[in-house]
Amino acid sequence: MTSISIVGSGNVAYHLGRAIHNSGIRITHIYSRNTEHADQLARELGADVSDLESLPGNQLALICISDDAISQVIERIPADIPVAYTSGSVEIDKLPEREHLGVFYPLQTLSKGTDVDISEVPMLIEANTASFQSNLLELANKISRSVHVVDSAQRAQLHIAAVWINNFTNHLVYQAQEITRKNNLDDSLLLPLLKETVRKLGSQSPYDAQTGPARRRDLKTIEKHMASLEGDARELYKMITKSIQETYRDEKL
Amino acid sequence: MTSISIVGSGNVAYHLGRAIHNSGIRITHIYSRNTEHADQLARELGADVSDLESLPGNQLALICISDDAISQVIERIPADIPVAYTSGSVEIDKLPEREHLGVFYPLQTLSKGTDVDISEVPMLIEANTASFQSNLLELANKISRSVHVVDSAQRAQLHIAAVWINNFTNHLVYQAQEITRKNNLDDSLLLPLLKETVRKLGSQSPYDAQTGPARRRDLKTIEKHMASLEGDARELYKMITKSIQETYRDEKL
Repeated sequence: MTSISIVGSGNVAYHLGRAIHNSGIRITHIYSRNTEHADQLARELGADVSDLESLPGNQLALICISDDAISQVIERIPADIPVAYTSGSVEIDKLPEREHLGVFYPLQTLSKGTDVDISEVPMLIEANTASFQSNLLELANKISRSVHVVDSAQRAQLHIAAVWINNFTNHLVYQAQEITRKNNLDDSLLLPLLKETVRKLGSQSPYDAQTGPARRRDLKTIEKHMASLEGDARELYKMITKSIQETYRDEKL
Repeated sequence: MTSISIVGSGNVAYHLGRAIHNSGIRITHIYSRNTEHADQLARELGADVSDLESLPGNQLALICISDDAISQVIERIPADIPVAYTSGSVEIDKLPEREHLGVFYPLQTLSKGTDVDISEVPMLIEANTASFQSNLLELANKISRSVHVVDSAQRAQLHIAAVWINNFTNHLVYQAQEITRKNNLDDSLLLPLLKETVRKLGSQSPYDAQTGPARRRDLKTIEKHMASLEGDARELYKMITKSIQETYRDEKL
């Protein structure tokens, strides 16, 4: 693989496009519904802007667009062009059949304003033929050290896990900062603890790393905490605490 | 302040003891109920092992022991010795009165096996007199760049926030890894996403950083996710999703 096309001009197109470009593979054509963004990305990657229907044959078209639009867009791309899409939850079997169809999914939160080291991002690969799978693996290995063949069902499960890891963690931090905000305390006080929590999980399982009132069945502290919370925060505190207690119910203290 | 004593020989005693020792302040005496650990820490810090009753006067005794034991231990220390304790939730007013009583609380998860850069750990200071408060601030400033005067009520609130940040985040990661485990996927696949989630929160509020099906009201995906979860995980998913939806209920999509 020496050149590819990219369809889309959002966060994923931007980050994968840059990483692929920097790996020495030429990105020759960009298509996007948003022509302004297409122009911008094409300039940045030294590519031409193209129509969907006139993308070059014999090279991969990497489809970096929102889940809802994938099926429709793929149907407009000439049948001889191999395509791979970057979605966590769209199943390969649910898309219109074609000779070469695959998945090239970066398991990471990508936004334009933030630089991400793609070499550390897990790339989840799936394809409808063994030879196309090898091609996609080869491409993935050029940009990342963490490349995995994962089927649609597993990928859907990883997508759920990613909601826990990213969206739900975010919301916990939001709830915690609501507490500091209401008490006129500096939000940033909590960041070192958050960083250390995550750093520990690099060498320890979350099961082993757990501490705190729920695991050690410190009901006095739990009650005190509950009494000072209200609304959603209180309900969440109660349910997460219950779930932790349940997780360690057979542990001898 | 040129020398202090430490009471306790657990994780907090170990980490604070080392940081204070490295800042050039002598730790002359160690007391711990666990004489073996006391010996070990005393050797490491070049200190002598001591009884509670014979700690040297005219220097701070830093009490690094579990919440339940603080009141009792402080009562055994001669009244002329200034004491500060390292608890997040014990209120200063609930302890036996004495001339110099204070709090020296590191807002961080500390365990013996893990090195922590104390200079980045927020130190929360409180004292029953202004002069003793200055002494504690002076000591805190020698080991940390993040020193804050925080009263008992605020500290109790920060302790709740710390449960969200540390224990609850841990539990979310546990739940996410249960998903990967059940689907024969490598746990470590999720760590880059977790790291990036936290890294983003260094420059963006959790409110702004939020993405995912709950915020964008993608009910189809939420239903799909719910259908594939069960038990505690399902209930937690439902409630956290509801709480996120509630947080962004007035947002125009």
